[in-house]
Amino acid sequence: MAERPIWEQIGTSFIQLYYQQFDTNREQLGALYTDASCLSWEGQQFQGKASIMEKLMRLPFQKIQHSITSQDHQPAPDNCILSMVVGQLKVDDDPVMGFHQLFVLKNINDKWICSNDIFRLALYNFA
Amino acid sequence: MAERPIWEQIGTSFIQLYYQQFDTNREQLGALYTDASCLSWEGQQFQGKASIMEKLMRLPFQKIQHSITSQDHQPAPDNCILSMVVGQLKVDDDPVMGFHQLFVLKNINDKWICSNDIFRLALYNFA
Repeated sequence: MAERPIWEQIGTSFIQLYYQQFDTNREQLGALYTDASCLSWEGQQFQGKASIMEKLMRLPFQKIQHSITSQDHQPAPDNCILSMVVGQLKVDDDPVMGFHQLFVLKNINDKWICSNDIFRLALYNFA
Repeated sequence: MAERPIWEQIGTSFIQLYYQQFDTNREQLGALYTDASCLSWEGQQFQGKASIMEKLMRLPFQKIQHSITSQDHQPAPDNCILSMVVGQLKVDDDPVMGFHQLFVLKNINDKWICSNDIFRLALYNFA
């Protein structure tokens, strides 16, 4: 059985950790960002760990549960890893919604951190 | 009026060019990839311009039309630009489908090329 490429192993582990922490203990996510990280959340832009964590901690719900439909990983320039996630999330008692999120992971001091993060709900205007 | 950041201007121009060429003259897309480019298309992986273009040219439809719902751009490591697109596409006489696609753009010899490309149709399993 062919071993999965290293970027896929790292990307998959990151994704698992990210959503586990998001759903159970959101403040731990701070360890995954640095002061150079960028977040776009539904079109709003945030830069740096403090600003990103302020946004994530203020999201207006009591509980959230993500489930992953697909994930793709690629090696990217500067020895980064690019990960795209498609999934569904359930917030409090709201209906399930689709979302997609992408991450650029960068190795800094032997630790993989999130250099870029873009999140969008899957909202379409089907005519 | 604040000017849009340069990465957003470049990303927006790239996205416009990419889908215009995709919809009207797909073989021109070859100029946007290099031999180091990676494409993930619905989970299938392709590396290098020749392999990517073979995949794109063999997609089984006569006509396609993309429309963009949202696009997000960020500066990324190694002076790259990260772009995430959410949109809809119509293939031949099939129903409209949602899709999302991300690009990493890299400047090589004063030209912005696509170093990474991940495409997924928006398929969810809502329970």
